[in-house]
Amino acid sequence: MKKRNIQVCMTPKLFSLYADKKSIVVVVDVLRATSSMCVAFENGVKRMIPVSTVEEALEYKNSDEDYILAAERNGKPVKSFDFGNSPQVYLDMDVKGKTVVMTTTNGTKAINIAKKDHEVVVGSFLNLDAIAKWLADKDRDVIIFCAGWKDKFNLEDTLFAGALVTQLLETSLYQDACDAAQAAKFLWGRSKDDLYGFLENSSHRNRLAKLNIDSDVHFCLKLNQTHKIPLLKGDFLVIDDV
Amino acid sequence: MKKRNIQVCMTPKLFSLYADKKSIVVVVDVLRATSSMCVAFENGVKRMIPVSTVEEALEYKNSDEDYILAAERNGKPVKSFDFGNSPQVYLDMDVKGKTVVMTTTNGTKAINIAKKDHEVVVGSFLNLDAIAKWLADKDRDVIIFCAGWKDKFNLEDTLFAGALVTQLLETSLYQDACDAAQAAKFLWGRSKDDLYGFLENSSHRNRLAKLNIDSDVHFCLKLNQTHKIPLLKGDFLVIDDV
Repeated sequence: MKKRNIQVCMTPKLFSLYADKKSIVVVVDVLRATSSMCVAFENGVKRMIPVSTVEEALEYKNSDEDYILAAERNGKPVKSFDFGNSPQVYLDMDVKGKTVVMTTTNGTKAINIAKKDHEVVVGSFLNLDAIAKWLADKDRDVIIFCAGWKDKFNLEDTLFAGALVTQLLETSLYQDACDAAQAAKFLWGRSKDDLYGFLENSSHRNRLAKLNIDSDVHFCLKLNQTHKIPLLKGDFLVIDDV
Repeated sequence: MKKRNIQVCMTPKLFSLYADKKSIVVVVDVLRATSSMCVAFENGVKRMIPVSTVEEALEYKNSDEDYILAAERNGKPVKSFDFGNSPQVYLDMDVKGKTVVMTTTNGTKAINIAKKDHEVVVGSFLNLDAIAKWLADKDRDVIIFCAGWKDKFNLEDTLFAGALVTQLLETSLYQDACDAAQAAKFLWGRSKDDLYGFLENSSHRNRLAKLNIDSDVHFCLKLNQTHKIPLLKGDFLVIDDV
């Protein structure tokens, strides 16, 4: 039986090189957009609308519908929005049945790039097992699309890519089809016993530490806290439970 | 004392993100362009002219000067050229004092991207120690620029980047200033005892194996075979001995 391909796209700037439109794309922005999305759905959010710009998000502000507006730029919440990009706000607030409009520096941008030609789901360490199982049930090639940081490579998204590559290879249904997938797999193997320590000197962990949101980093590096699979349908993320 | 920064640019498509024009850029295309350049100079070549296109290279064909023309596309020599991209041809032929005009799929393209705004030198495993020493003698930031494969990430160039990052950090003069440098360093640590084995499933090693040039791969993965530092002066690569 022909094995399915797994590829890893390390930053949005490289995504145009991945022309295979039949692949499912798993968008990942571990710190923190896609982690926040997983937590939002776990805590009862009904739909999310990932938009690329703050301006687009603000268009929802004066709508009749009761949207929650979440916006982050450069690691900080944007003024006049309800939420920033922290996953932990969804634990404290009653968000059941709500629709969240979200824009972030990297993650929502990656989703909007990928959705033009591909089916898109959202991955994070928080739903790692669930998304691996969900993918294995489809007979499709996979592109793991790291949101990175302003088009540059980042470690944390690549580690998640490595974790997912490793799990998918263990099913024997897949083959790693590019060097980036192999590199990610090796980096995951090296880091999995102490993700937080491995990321000690990473650029984004340091960026968040300066903003005093180190507890978000700990939170986002926990494995398998939810079975929710945020799946893009048109402009909306909705859940597809495993 | 302020430490010098080391950054790693994983593919040409990302190079525009590295705007610091004061950095020295080390271009690397281990399999095989920059390895061939190191060998060419070790064997007496006087100058090399790296050009981006086959058409540009052909313009030198009917010149009065006695150029050697070397061209590779997709791993294969281009018809009607003297040489392809194999480093080993420079061992068998008398190339002393000659000027080589070279165009390759990735390496010469990367050199021509970098030269617009940066000082450029050429690195490979063959001149690893020499280039680390040469850089350490300058008080400059460093960008290690992996040529990749058609704008995608590749393993072998990243392993060289990791080797060079590791050596530079050991001098205590430098700090790794991006996640890509950290990832490269970890991958080098994982692979250094068996580079050939580590690259067993890499895309480019497999590409070259299909062309029956596995001996070139072995050749290019040897460390420290030369002290030559190919350095770009205008449009010419010349040597700067350590």
